[in-house]
Amino acid sequence: MIVTPQTFSFTEPLRLQSGAVLPSYELTVETYGTLNAERTNAVLVCHALNASHHVAGWYADAGGQTIARSEGWWNNMIGPGKPVDTDRWFVIGVNNLGSCFGSTGPTHINPATGEPWGADFPVVTVEDWVNAQARLLDAMGIDTLAAVMGGSLGGMQTLSWTLQYPERVRHAVVVASAPNLTAENIAFNEVARRAIVTDPDFHGGHYLRHGTLPRRGLRIARMIGHITYLSDDVMNEKFGRMLRPRDAEALLDDGASVAGTTAEGSYRYSTQDIEFQIESYLRYQGDKFSEYFDANTYLLITRALDYFDPARSYEGRLSAALARARARFLLVSFTTDWRFSPARSREMVKALLENGRAVSYCEIDAPHGHDAFLLDDPRYHAAVRSYFEHTVGGAA
Amino acid sequence: MIVTPQTFSFTEPLRLQSGAVLPSYELTVETYGTLNAERTNAVLVCHALNASHHVAGWYADAGGQTIARSEGWWNNMIGPGKPVDTDRWFVIGVNNLGSCFGSTGPTHINPATGEPWGADFPVVTVEDWVNAQARLLDAMGIDTLAAVMGGSLGGMQTLSWTLQYPERVRHAVVVASAPNLTAENIAFNEVARRAIVTDPDFHGGHYLRHGTLPRRGLRIARMIGHITYLSDDVMNEKFGRMLRPRDAEALLDDGASVAGTTAEGSYRYSTQDIEFQIESYLRYQGDKFSEYFDANTYLLITRALDYFDPARSYEGRLSAALARARARFLLVSFTTDWRFSPARSREMVKALLENGRAVSYCEIDAPHGHDAFLLDDPRYHAAVRSYFEHTVGGAA
Repeated sequence: MIVTPQTFSFTEPLRLQSGAVLPSYELTVETYGTLNAERTNAVLVCHALNASHHVAGWYADAGGQTIARSEGWWNNMIGPGKPVDTDRWFVIGVNNLGSCFGSTGPTHINPATGEPWGADFPVVTVEDWVNAQARLLDAMGIDTLAAVMGGSLGGMQTLSWTLQYPERVRHAVVVASAPNLTAENIAFNEVARRAIVTDPDFHGGHYLRHGTLPRRGLRIARMIGHITYLSDDVMNEKFGRMLRPRDAEALLDDGASVAGTTAEGSYRYSTQDIEFQIESYLRYQGDKFSEYFDANTYLLITRALDYFDPARSYEGRLSAALARARARFLLVSFTTDWRFSPARSREMVKALLENGRAVSYCEIDAPHGHDAFLLDDPRYHAAVRSYFEHTVGGAA
Repeated sequence: MIVTPQTFSFTEPLRLQSGAVLPSYELTVETYGTLNAERTNAVLVCHALNASHHVAGWYADAGGQTIARSEGWWNNMIGPGKPVDTDRWFVIGVNNLGSCFGSTGPTHINPATGEPWGADFPVVTVEDWVNAQARLLDAMGIDTLAAVMGGSLGGMQTLSWTLQYPERVRHAVVVASAPNLTAENIAFNEVARRAIVTDPDFHGGHYLRHGTLPRRGLRIARMIGHITYLSDDVMNEKFGRMLRPRDAEALLDDGASVAGTTAEGSYRYSTQDIEFQIESYLRYQGDKFSEYFDANTYLLITRALDYFDPARSYEGRLSAALARARARFLLVSFTTDWRFSPARSREMVKALLENGRAVSYCEIDAPHGHDAFLLDDPRYHAAVRSYFEHTVGGAA
């Protein structure tokens, strides 16, 4: 499936939750499948931290795109014959405001100054994203969504859709998500942000004006993120305590210790060189990320995660907060996800049931941690497939 | 109990595990209680990442010390009438090589160059520390220890004592420790090290020569550490999603949102300002740490953690690795410690039992995560007290 992004421009100002106003903006969008004549088969997919509108398919020419890879981030889930079958559903991927992948964000020009927004780009929240997505649907002539779906931060947007526009959502698929972040989640976000903000190349968020990029900070942020996406189990299985493979250069440089190599190789006894494979993996992930991701976007998106908390206006009572929802729900969680643990999904299930909502819940025994929501575990995919075929599709 | 550190100088070169040789060195030491005439009541306490020889008691003049606080780090555990009763036991606290609290380390002068060692200080391992501690005991005229004890990295040293000097240790008390680090543990250490090493003020580890200190990196390292020392539960209990207290300045600056304050206060909508109390706590911990801890020491000590793996020479078979031990053991773990989980302690218990060793094991149901080993949970302290009174003391 070869796909092409489109751009929608909005000139009606968007009032944000913070009180700030975005005078005009663009949203970058991809769609897959065909909108039916009744306009009842639209499925909106919301993205998480470092993803985009490029949900499924491939680009004809990946070189021309700003996104890191040509394959859509949920390509195993969405497409012809896949769990969310684009032969039946009209699927919409939308890049969120504040991103660095197309929609208006900090790397774009602030019309008030003629300079890149940088750190002056207003703080956006999950609720703001949902409002912008609703305007996109208006522009597309879609009144009601067959479903909204998303994982992690995308699941928060999905939940928020059912509260902000209850009458426009028939089904909500919330994967590996939570009704808010825990203190530990916020703590990891904060360390990542501090790494970026204290990078001397950050320049208060106006690095583009200074011709620099806070790559050091982004690397650290991404390394921290990666650790929290994986489970301890899968890290032990994939990397364990294995040493880095010795390359030719290391053999030449370090003859003495090669002579004493055991089956597992021998230590270099260095605090700065790569010693374990997990270190090599993390450095590589950090380097790659720092080449394509915008630092201000990282700050904005992690803050949107921190802020999301629908129960906050109800003295913490999630059940009261979810009383407005009218959708039917599928929630999915993964046993080894310690970032958005099954317990957090169960909180949402409980609060929805207390409101008499129809809820399906799958707790998938998977070793992959939070990352599992992007992988093609057969039980997980079967659950989503079945929900779309029989529940979303049955009521269509 | 007012205490004073002493310095022991060693001129016999110490050959390190890496093959490097430390030509001479000093160890900073504190002792509590009195060595009996038979020299059979000595208890060695090994310290963890950011601690020192200052295990118990108080300094008469804290201002003159380089250590952050005047109270010994295990003062609730060790002292007159405490679980390790210094009216009965002669307790020795020793600062490890490579530290920044007194014993020879990277901030000291390298005799070969006349400059601070900095990044040239040799990599030291748990085994090296134990060898240095054994020489200290020789210098003190102590042949056999009634017990060695330590938590976390200190527990690793304790375990290593029973393997390197099996005939010199009667009892080993290993708290909140592990037989090696998991990939996730190494990953957290590596991110912390990268934050330090990529700080432009690090200067390849020779920051002292440049008159700088890599404080940014140390702050990030400490923030990461702190998250992993606490449990998700205790963070939620202590901080949850509480917002920072509004100070007078914030009230003046931000009148509009104060007017709309709910019981929990209102968001500032900022990516860089402190919004949640957990952020304020972490920044404070990071700032404080960066004022007194040496960056090269941080690298060395986290590497010692990474490297420790007695089973490595036995193709990963811990039981074979522990066959040399002759001591009796008390192991303690804490249910919410996800850094050194109870499962890791149980691995050691199993391997010791397979070797026919006498092992007591306490798994304490405590909410405080890894930090629990420093706190005075009554069941934990009762277990240690009882072990010293009846088992160590009974056989003395």
